[in-house]
Amino acid sequence: MPAVAAGPEIERLIQLLARLPGLGPRSARRAALFLIKKRETLMAPLAAALQTAIEKIEVCRVCGNIDTQNPCTVCTDARRDPAAIVVVADVADLWALERARAINARYHVLGGTLSPLDGVGPDDLSIAALVKRAHDPAVNEIILALNATVDGQSTAHYITDLLHDAKVKVTRLAHGVPVGGELDYLDEGTLAAAIRSRTPF
Amino acid sequence: MPAVAAGPEIERLIQLLARLPGLGPRSARRAALFLIKKRETLMAPLAAALQTAIEKIEVCRVCGNIDTQNPCTVCTDARRDPAAIVVVADVADLWALERARAINARYHVLGGTLSPLDGVGPDDLSIAALVKRAHDPAVNEIILALNATVDGQSTAHYITDLLHDAKVKVTRLAHGVPVGGELDYLDEGTLAAAIRSRTPF
Repeated sequence: MPAVAAGPEIERLIQLLARLPGLGPRSARRAALFLIKKRETLMAPLAAALQTAIEKIEVCRVCGNIDTQNPCTVCTDARRDPAAIVVVADVADLWALERARAINARYHVLGGTLSPLDGVGPDDLSIAALVKRAHDPAVNEIILALNATVDGQSTAHYITDLLHDAKVKVTRLAHGVPVGGELDYLDEGTLAAAIRSRTPF
Repeated sequence: MPAVAAGPEIERLIQLLARLPGLGPRSARRAALFLIKKRETLMAPLAAALQTAIEKIEVCRVCGNIDTQNPCTVCTDARRDPAAIVVVADVADLWALERARAINARYHVLGGTLSPLDGVGPDDLSIAALVKRAHDPAVNEIILALNATVDGQSTAHYITDLLHDAKVKVTRLAHGVPVGGELDYLDEGTLAAAIRSRTPF
């Protein structure tokens, strides 16, 4: 990227912003200018929020969520059902389920999915810790909320096999027509699954 | 936006990131997670770069560019042609011309364009300072590099009238076919201008 006629400090800010997902070199320049124009109302609060995050955010030692307390807010929330653990690949998936208020249980973040092609094996994921949690007598259901992809589903199968000895029911997310989805645009696999799992009306 | 199950500090970081141009609530969450995962290699450098920018960046008292030195790098660059001043609406336009290496002159940033509908009058822009610079005997050309919009062109006319007394030539950017542009996709105004300003081949 050529110089921006504005000194190395601004160029460094632009380069760092350009590494964020969703921002390219051009939008990073726009974002940098926007920040500089809003020095008091946005740039200073953002710098402070980043600094706070750097100092305070930890990975929850129980579930793998990220939070400023450890164990995290979800794990320490006494109103949550202690009998179910929702297994997700990533913190983003945990957040998505929480936004949907889909279930009032606790989580377990694997940190990815098994992917032989990318060299991700069972030891790279938080699977041993999940098996240990599944043997807690208070837990009676493990809900596998993994992506409906090849990697996600093979991870689900691998975990189900490991949990054979644990006295838990292993469930997974339903397949079907997305809410608001149009049949015409859905793939055959989803349509077949939706017919198979049809429910009384 | 509902809670993200991750404490108020992370939510605040997401909300601040979502105010950047080009990032919505969803991509701000992705960006926040990305930053948290890359705490040492991205989040800490970004926090430091923002802090440096907050402390060091100033508006150039000569031209209105932003830089960590004042007057700015461009204004103090002795290799630039002292006879021409390129007038731009915004610092982003100055950067765009510098990236294009379009001209080796100095600039004057107006801080916007005249816009009666938005309540932007001549006193809201750096126009008086431009007129003063135009009366410097060393300056013999004012190049109006303003957007080819109604506001940009009425600003250009307004400045041209004000510079009537100054001993400078006032020029503006050429209109024509963008490099790489296809005639079929161009508006009638651009095509008519390109024909009017045709050049020998």
